[in-house]
Amino acid sequence: MSSLSSTLALAFDLISRPSITPKDEGCQQLMIERLKTLGFSIEDMPFEDVKNFWATHGTQGPVFCFAGHTDVVPVGSPDKWKHDPFQPYIDDNGMLYGRGAADMKGSLAAMIVATERFINKYPNHKGTISFLITSDEEGIATHGTRAVVETLAKRNDTIDWCIVGEPSSVNKLGDMVKNGRRGSLNGKLTIKGKQGHVAYPQNAKNPIFLASPAITELANTLWDHGNDFFPPTSFQISNIQSGTGANNVIPGELHADFNFRFSTKSTVEDLKQRVANILNKHQLDWHIDWSLSGLPFLTEPGQLLAAIGESIQAVTGITTEPSTSGGTSDGRFIATLNCQVVELGPINETIHQVDEHVNAEDLNLLTEIYYQTLERLLAE
Amino acid sequence: MSSLSSTLALAFDLISRPSITPKDEGCQQLMIERLKTLGFSIEDMPFEDVKNFWATHGTQGPVFCFAGHTDVVPVGSPDKWKHDPFQPYIDDNGMLYGRGAADMKGSLAAMIVATERFINKYPNHKGTISFLITSDEEGIATHGTRAVVETLAKRNDTIDWCIVGEPSSVNKLGDMVKNGRRGSLNGKLTIKGKQGHVAYPQNAKNPIFLASPAITELANTLWDHGNDFFPPTSFQISNIQSGTGANNVIPGELHADFNFRFSTKSTVEDLKQRVANILNKHQLDWHIDWSLSGLPFLTEPGQLLAAIGESIQAVTGITTEPSTSGGTSDGRFIATLNCQVVELGPINETIHQVDEHVNAEDLNLLTEIYYQTLERLLAE
Ligand SMILES: [Zn+2]
Ligand SMILES: [Zn+2]
Repeated sequence: MSSLSSTLALAFDLISRPSITPKDEGCQQLMIERLKTLGFSIEDMPFEDVKNFWATHGTQGPVFCFAGHTDVVPVGSPDKWKHDPFQPYIDDNGMLYGRGAADMKGSLAAMIVATERFINKYPNHKGTISFLITSDEEGIATHGTRAVVETLAKRNDTIDWCIVGEPSSVNKLGDMVKNGRRGSLNGKLTIKGKQGHVAYPQNAKNPIFLASPAITELANTLWDHGNDFFPPTSFQISNIQSGTGANNVIPGELHADFNFRFSTKSTVEDLKQRVANILNKHQLDWHIDWSLSGLPFLTEPGQLLAAIGESIQAVTGITTEPSTSGGTSDGRFIATLNCQVVELGPINETIHQVDEHVNAEDLNLLTEIYYQTLERLLAE
Repeated sequence: MSSLSSTLALAFDLISRPSITPKDEGCQQLMIERLKTLGFSIEDMPFEDVKNFWATHGTQGPVFCFAGHTDVVPVGSPDKWKHDPFQPYIDDNGMLYGRGAADMKGSLAAMIVATERFINKYPNHKGTISFLITSDEEGIATHGTRAVVETLAKRNDTIDWCIVGEPSSVNKLGDMVKNGRRGSLNGKLTIKGKQGHVAYPQNAKNPIFLASPAITELANTLWDHGNDFFPPTSFQISNIQSGTGANNVIPGELHADFNFRFSTKSTVEDLKQRVANILNKHQLDWHIDWSLSGLPFLTEPGQLLAAIGESIQAVTGITTEPSTSGGTSDGRFIATLNCQVVELGPINETIHQVDEHVNAEDLNLLTEIYYQTLERLLAE
């Protein structure tokens, strides 16, 4: 292996730090040192045990933001890895192995190096370049990006364009970017029956039997048709439990956890009401504890998507596909600032798995895509 | 309190022994001593850690049997009892308190004393009087009556008439006897789906959704209409579980425990086939582990029911009601010997509860009912 590119050298440094969520293990300090050298103003924004920082270069609008996280998911069984997950390694096929290689320390390195090149070339660039970095995206995510965004909102700091470094690519670098995410709404459902002995069913009401037709109707309901940017809203039950464990007891209650992934075609209130209507129609004695884990967001075609799309085309020759599929991300918090948010990062095939890896050369290309995007938006 | 009747004195002796299932704590030895004095042949039949005995007086048919158990269910929190559960106590209302007072040490005492009186009066009675006593009815019940009956069957020992001392009475002593019990058939159902992430439902199959319509159909199926002696067969699910605990995972499997209480109108094979048909109709990928916990049995009107009914009428003035309701009992094992089996004992209102008690005078009346039944069947 010859000498590493600037991006790969920084990715190695970051991956070497075992920053299992919500730990940071000095990753942010590494980034901060590089940004300070460029003249960025740095603001530490720790909340509880979570390290976050907000950094800005420039004082005018428009404000461009690179957002991301330094924490990684646990490694599972370290002995199942070909290489130590915290000792980055590039194999003969040019694959960079290590926890966080794809999600998302590679992207963080690319952001820093792209910014260095851009500011060196355009020291008097337009607007502001900012970084919003957290060490709690993979965990509870309460004291991470969400808390930073709330602080920014309170003091009327704005962001116009944001690239989140989440690994958005599927088969080839840049083939997909995420220009939105569905909302996620959780419910903990309790259905009451009446406990009794299986030998005396006439004295009991089995909540499993009471619930079944309603579950069937919930499963078969078409909540909306989606729209040009979103697939139809989906409903799933992730957990169901009823019973005392004894074979001869009809249970008194049934518990189910369900989740909506919902498009901008449905509102939270509407979904809640429609669930209630179905449960009431089946004459159930029910209770739901609702929790909203994220509203849907959508970045419609505009300056940011155009700049990103052109940069990807120029660097890779690929026409990128904007998509809103997949799970939630911190983009949902940033979008509440009414800004354009797009997720763009390397191939996500191995994230959260044993032997997480990414094509090392893709990180160099990603650096160039980030750089050209800055150039298209903020070059003087 | 003046001096105790012979039945109550023996009931006190038995209740004083903390024979929590499957322990016997010398109860059987007490009974055996009394039976030996009467000239019974005693055969200990221990299996594993369970004490059982078989005793006979006479060598000819017909064979009458008193069956019962010396074990009791645990006491729960002893401090919730008004009196020490193993210190029998008769209160001012004539109620005998103690674990086992109703289920079924009171009955055991009544059987012994009735037999003593009968043999003293009819030393050359017809046929044979036998006792089949176990210390494992309230527990797993594998090494108790079931094992004794299997041994008797192997060597072609027969029983013609059997009274099981289970507390069959509801509001007044003798108001109900059990002349049969429904069968009990358990199934452990697994329904396979395909695990996945809630954000990608198109790649998963939710077994909760797949199962719901089938559960509804199972719940609504009329399995049979019952007959003159049995209510219709009933189907209940006692436990259902699916899900990893995580909110964002569509589970791969659903597990449900179900139970049939079935009449003599349905057979085990028929019920199994009909469940399979319903699951197949809903195109489920399913598996069931079946376990039969008891075949139904029925003692139709005949000599035993007549003798018992007349004795109850004579002693209490009540016309008894034969019933097959309620849970299973050791009667199901004895019935496999092709004999008439009837359960007759005191009021069952407080069995298995804190402050289990029975009207003390009822045990004296029960002794008289047992005695008269012997007289009607076996007096010379
Ligand atoms: Zn990530
Ligand atoms: Zn009992």
